[in-house]
Amino acid sequence: MPPISSSTWVLKPLFPALLPNRFLRVIPKTLTSVAAYAAHPPGTELQQPQRIDVNPPRGTRDFPPQEMRLRTWLFHNFKEVSRLYGFEEVDFPVLESEALFIRKAGEEIRDQLYCFEDRGNRRVALRPELTPSLARLVIQKGKSISLPLKWFAIGQCWRYERMTRGRRREHYQWNMDIIGVPEVTAEAELISSVVTFFKRLGITSSDVGFKVSSRKVLQEVLRRYSISDDLFGKVCIIIDKIEKIPRDEIKKDLKSVGMSDEVVEDLLHVLSIKSLEKLEEVLGGRGEAVTDLKLLFSLAEKFGYSDWIQFDASIVRGLAYYTGVVFEGFDREGKLRAICGGGRYDRLLSTFGGEDVPACGFGFGDAVIVEASGNLFLFLFPCFGKGILETTFDKVICGQKETKRLLKEKGLLPELSLQVENIVCALDQDLQGAAATVANILREKGKSVDLVLESKPLKWVFKRAARINAERLVLVGKTEWEKGMVVVKTLASGEQNEVKLDELE
Amino acid sequence: MPPISSSTWVLKPLFPALLPNRFLRVIPKTLTSVAAYAAHPPGTELQQPQRIDVNPPRGTRDFPPQEMRLRTWLFHNFKEVSRLYGFEEVDFPVLESEALFIRKAGEEIRDQLYCFEDRGNRRVALRPELTPSLARLVIQKGKSISLPLKWFAIGQCWRYERMTRGRRREHYQWNMDIIGVPEVTAEAELISSVVTFFKRLGITSSDVGFKVSSRKVLQEVLRRYSISDDLFGKVCIIIDKIEKIPRDEIKKDLKSVGMSDEVVEDLLHVLSIKSLEKLEEVLGGRGEAVTDLKLLFSLAEKFGYSDWIQFDASIVRGLAYYTGVVFEGFDREGKLRAICGGGRYDRLLSTFGGEDVPACGFGFGDAVIVEASGNLFLFLFPCFGKGILETTFDKVICGQKETKRLLKEKGLLPELSLQVENIVCALDQDLQGAAATVANILREKGKSVDLVLESKPLKWVFKRAARINAERLVLVGKTEWEKGMVVVKTLASGEQNEVKLDELE
Repeated sequence: MPPISSSTWVLKPLFPALLPNRFLRVIPKTLTSVAAYAAHPPGTELQQPQRIDVNPPRGTRDFPPQEMRLRTWLFHNFKEVSRLYGFEEVDFPVLESEALFIRKAGEEIRDQLYCFEDRGNRRVALRPELTPSLARLVIQKGKSISLPLKWFAIGQCWRYERMTRGRRREHYQWNMDIIGVPEVTAEAELISSVVTFFKRLGITSSDVGFKVSSRKVLQEVLRRYSISDDLFGKVCIIIDKIEKIPRDEIKKDLKSVGMSDEVVEDLLHVLSIKSLEKLEEVLGGRGEAVTDLKLLFSLAEKFGYSDWIQFDASIVRGLAYYTGVVFEGFDREGKLRAICGGGRYDRLLSTFGGEDVPACGFGFGDAVIVEASGNLFLFLFPCFGKGILETTFDKVICGQKETKRLLKEKGLLPELSLQVENIVCALDQDLQGAAATVANILREKGKSVDLVLESKPLKWVFKRAARINAERLVLVGKTEWEKGMVVVKTLASGEQNEVKLDELE
Repeated sequence: MPPISSSTWVLKPLFPALLPNRFLRVIPKTLTSVAAYAAHPPGTELQQPQRIDVNPPRGTRDFPPQEMRLRTWLFHNFKEVSRLYGFEEVDFPVLESEALFIRKAGEEIRDQLYCFEDRGNRRVALRPELTPSLARLVIQKGKSISLPLKWFAIGQCWRYERMTRGRRREHYQWNMDIIGVPEVTAEAELISSVVTFFKRLGITSSDVGFKVSSRKVLQEVLRRYSISDDLFGKVCIIIDKIEKIPRDEIKKDLKSVGMSDEVVEDLLHVLSIKSLEKLEEVLGGRGEAVTDLKLLFSLAEKFGYSDWIQFDASIVRGLAYYTGVVFEGFDREGKLRAICGGGRYDRLLSTFGGEDVPACGFGFGDAVIVEASGNLFLFLFPCFGKGILETTFDKVICGQKETKRLLKEKGLLPELSLQVENIVCALDQDLQGAAATVANILREKGKSVDLVLESKPLKWVFKRAARINAERLVLVGKTEWEKGMVVVKTLASGEQNEVKLDELE
């Protein structure tokens, strides 16, 4: 990996050096203090401080209102699905001890750990994933909790990697975990919940699928050749790259950990299997791998998502701690990285010194869904074809009336505009207090109010009303106010009425 | 400040050294590989790794389900009030360039900056507050935004300070900011929104009040003595400690920045003023300080929160960037630190090299409200007297039936129990798939379902149903299933019916 570019994170101006003086220097603008002017003669006064870098740190995002509404909409869907499945929300610190994430398994997630030494010289890290914190909390709670636990979390996760186009140093991840169920019904339930999520968004099984396998497949092959189980984790990490790097390199890597040509060939043969029948032929029908997977596929039928899942022996996932069934969501067009992934991790707790409890879970990042790119818009709304690739998700949803109309018809449009029920405006500077009273009345009745806080011409007020999608304009004018009334204008129809204060709602 | 205790943050066991081996070592449990057993003879197998520190890093919190529900309830109230006032939600990265927060003003917030060098040797910091990020985003958006902006955010903020009882290194802060309104109507609107928040929680003006002043009071006094405005920021930081450190030390600090005895005495005299009439007598009625404050108090009357606010010249707030009206919320019993605080910061943007825009806002931390202490429970629910001080907020709300009943009667009890509408259970292992089908039907109708994923005795199922507050138990038994039916038991009444699958809802 090339070194991190030295331009990353850097602030363009020498801001820290300039700020403090400048800060104190701004005060004289409102004052006429002789002393102040002596200290800062007019010439220096005019000198503006250099502008700071106004972008968020590289690889991170701001969420201005438009983006925040999209995030809220997405999180709402995560939460709603979790609720339907009876899961409880939890969260953990975004900053954890580095030790919680250290595993010598060559994982990408470990190599990209966003770690540092704090002011007290402790090694800490911004969490790259949520599962280790969850395991920590489960050990902490010990016998006080009744199993099974069904927990979900939506948390920001961090990685420190070389920045390339479209890569980020943070994303939000939705996790659902079931702690205390050894049966594969738990995995079936988890995949069902992700399917439910996709369906809510209007995404179908012709857009997205799940590749499913079990790490026990690999275990059974290694066992056949009496390969040390010490190699298991390492082999998983190598196999996980099978679709990302050339076949020859995979072979080379497998040999480098001590596998013979014969084992490598046999292993790669088994990993190329794409049907359970074929797997059963090769491994026999009595191992755990085949038994688990057959049960999972039969449950998928009962849950009604058979058309979403397919067996693929090459799926092992890139985290060291998985022990059984593993799965990942993929887009059928093959344009995106894995959309989500998960599996069983029955032995994670003992690696932290706790007692093992059977567990499984998945992680689903927000990046693939809300990335501001036409590609992903297309992924979400494939009905619109390639033309849309040119523009951004943001622009598409917000800028194109025709698209908006179509999405609305399909019921797929998330509510991405600010909507305030009322805009309340005093027609006279003197009536600003009266307008406050009116706003208060409406708010106490649960109605949202944008109160115009300055004296502005009506033209400005109408423009603002349109911008915030206000339903009604409430005008506080002298004549009506003296009668204890206000003018209420319904903006869609233009209808206008005088309404008594105590009848306002 | 004493050095940070060396036990802070440290993990008790030498976990990093033990984990990787241990991780690979757990695999043999499920396998019989000779190689594996050779590598790890049974004696070593039994050796458990030392347990990690299962607590979150010192000064940080986990949010297990119970605490998470309280946080969700609190955030819901923050969001609902913000919606009523027509504010849009925004967010920024929790990690920012350190430069954004550096001000040489001796602020507590600056001294406790949680800053570090990242792997690319850039100085970064976990944000101690949200306002600088907001200012950065406003500059970035430039002319593309229509003023005024009314933005709110709920974000985690960090500080690195010596840990003492009840102090934390992180809290969540609710911010509301109005950008682009020079009039004091903006401050009036902000205070109104915090009052609305308190009222929603059942907190009254006899529990909580706001002390209000303006930094222009201090400016006008300094101007009278031709004191350099360079001192303004420093003097504000000193004055902010007026209720926390002895009067003599305040005097000493003021003199140390170059003020004469006479000025110090006069300044302290003005700062002791607690009524606007008195302030007008001393400063005269034509300055901006008096004009602003009089308008604010007159608007408070129209908004209907006069009984919540009082003038107090000693309030200046501890952030360097405030320029005008400042306010803070306090508990009338005087037991807590400031509950919230805010003010006008018309010149913050130019310190970042942007064009100044009039702005004001407040921050409201979650610590005072959800701190798990009886003290704060008492603050929230003063009706319960001192007895409750012995126990914790958590225990009070969740453990004491009597308290729960009383709170419910007052309508003050936030919903803190898990509630799942249905628990679905197969009576036979064979019917696990059928139970999945039933769960699916209910979830598609928007009903939440806890699906029992293992074969469990009915006694266990009833116990779980009680724990999750399930309304109905849906039993999938052989006889009924063959008729296309399930048994639905309403748990509150005990009523039990056979229901056809297509009539289930």
